[in-house]
Amino acid sequence: MMSIDECKTVWCNADIVCFDVDSTLIKDEGLDELAEFCGVGEQVKQWTRKAMGGSTRFRVALENRLEIIKPSHDQVSKFRESQPIRFSDGLEELVKTLQNKGKEIYLVSGGFRSLIEPAAKLLGIPYENIFANRLQFYYNGDYAGFDTTQPTSDTGGKKLVAEKLKEKNKTVVFIGDGVTDLESWPPADCFIGYGGNIVRESVKEKAPWFITDFKDLITILQQSS
Amino acid sequence: MMSIDECKTVWCNADIVCFDVDSTLIKDEGLDELAEFCGVGEQVKQWTRKAMGGSTRFRVALENRLEIIKPSHDQVSKFRESQPIRFSDGLEELVKTLQNKGKEIYLVSGGFRSLIEPAAKLLGIPYENIFANRLQFYYNGDYAGFDTTQPTSDTGGKKLVAEKLKEKNKTVVFIGDGVTDLESWPPADCFIGYGGNIVRESVKEKAPWFITDFKDLITILQQSS
Ligand SMILES: [Mg+2]
Ligand SMILES: [Mg+2]
Repeated sequence: MMSIDECKTVWCNADIVCFDVDSTLIKDEGLDELAEFCGVGEQVKQWTRKAMGGSTRFRVALENRLEIIKPSHDQVSKFRESQPIRFSDGLEELVKTLQNKGKEIYLVSGGFRSLIEPAAKLLGIPYENIFANRLQFYYNGDYAGFDTTQPTSDTGGKKLVAEKLKEKNKTVVFIGDGVTDLESWPPADCFIGYGGNIVRESVKEKAPWFITDFKDLITILQQSS
Repeated sequence: MMSIDECKTVWCNADIVCFDVDSTLIKDEGLDELAEFCGVGEQVKQWTRKAMGGSTRFRVALENRLEIIKPSHDQVSKFRESQPIRFSDGLEELVKTLQNKGKEIYLVSGGFRSLIEPAAKLLGIPYENIFANRLQFYYNGDYAGFDTTQPTSDTGGKKLVAEKLKEKNKTVVFIGDGVTDLESWPPADCFIGYGGNIVRESVKEKAPWFITDFKDLITILQQSS
C-alpha cells in the first residue's frame, strides 16, 4: 500500500495527469444527462448506479443504457448545444496550473467522446488526449451502436489506457471518483480518489490519497515549485 | 429446371417484384461510383469484380472495399447531391407499369441504403421496401463501419430476403444481373436474369428467363391484362 506522502510526491512529479470525466472533471454523469434530455432519465439512472457500483460488466451496462436512450445524431447535437458544462469546483484552476507546469492532461472516460469534446475544448485539452467511447449513427442520424474496439468500452478499460500511457516511461497519475478509475493504478504510478461530487466508500478506502477539493492538489503543486 | 414459359406465367401473376439495384435498377455499381467520387476508384473496382464473380465471401469483399473508401457522412451526402441517377433503359416505364397493376416493388441490394434512397424516391418506392446495407458513422461524420446484422451484408443474403417475402404467401419474382441475385430463386418463385448493362455468363446460363431489355417484361404484362 502506498502512503499518502508517497502519493503526494508522485503527484508533484507527474508528467501525465489523467482525469476521469463524469463526477470528476464535471459534476454530472454525461449519459444520465443525455438520457434526461431524451426523456428516459429515470430508467437510465438506475443502470448507471449499478454500473458505478461495479457489480455489472461495464459493456453490458453501457449497452443496456444506450438501448434505452438510442440517441440520434440530432439529439446529441442539440444536447451539446443546450447543456451548460458544469466543471467540478476548482477544476479549471487545477487544469490551468497543470498546463502552466507543462504537464500533459488526458481525459479517460467510459462515457462518450462526443459528449466530452466540448469540455476538452473549453479547457484547451487536445482531442487526441481523449480516451473515451464513440457513438455510431446511421446515415439518417439514427443511433447505430458504439465502437466496441475502444479500450474504455469494457471493464478494465482504464487500466489498459494507463498501461498504454506508461509505455512512454513517464510518471502517470490518475484522478477519479469511481471503482473503474481505481483499476488504473497500477499501472498508473498513483491514484488520487476524488469525492467532491460524490463519495464512493470503496474508492475512499482504497485510494492512497482521497480528496474532496481540487485546491489540495493545487496547493501542493505550488509549494513544490 | 423451370421453362421460359413457366417463368413468364409466374411473372404475369407476380404480387411482389424484387429488383437488384446495381447494374439492374441503375446502370452503375453504386459503391464503385462512390469510390471514384472519393478518389479510390481503381482499387475498389478490382474488388467489386471479384465480389460479382462470386469467388469471395460477400462480407469480406464489402469490408475490404469500405476499408479502402472509408466514406465520411459528408462524402456520402455530397455524392448523393452531385451524382445523377442513371436508371437502366426502360426501367422507369417498367416500374410505372408494375405500380399501375398494383404490384409491390422491393429493392434488394448488397449496396447501401443511403445510396439507394434517392433512386427509390424518384421511382415512388417506399423506403420500407428497401433491403440493403447500412453505413455507420461516428458523431464527427467519420466512417465507422456497416451494420453486419442486415441479411444483405453477407453471402446468401438475397435468399434470406426472398424467404422473408415469401412468408406472406405471395408470388415473388426476383430480377437481377448477378450471381447473388440468382441465389434468391428458390425461395423466390422465379428469377429473371437481366443483362442490359452487363452480361454475366453464369447468370445467363442458369436463369430460366434472361433478358437484355426491360421492354420484354412490359410487353408481356400488357398482353396478359
Ligand atoms: Mg466518474
Ligand atoms: Mg447487380
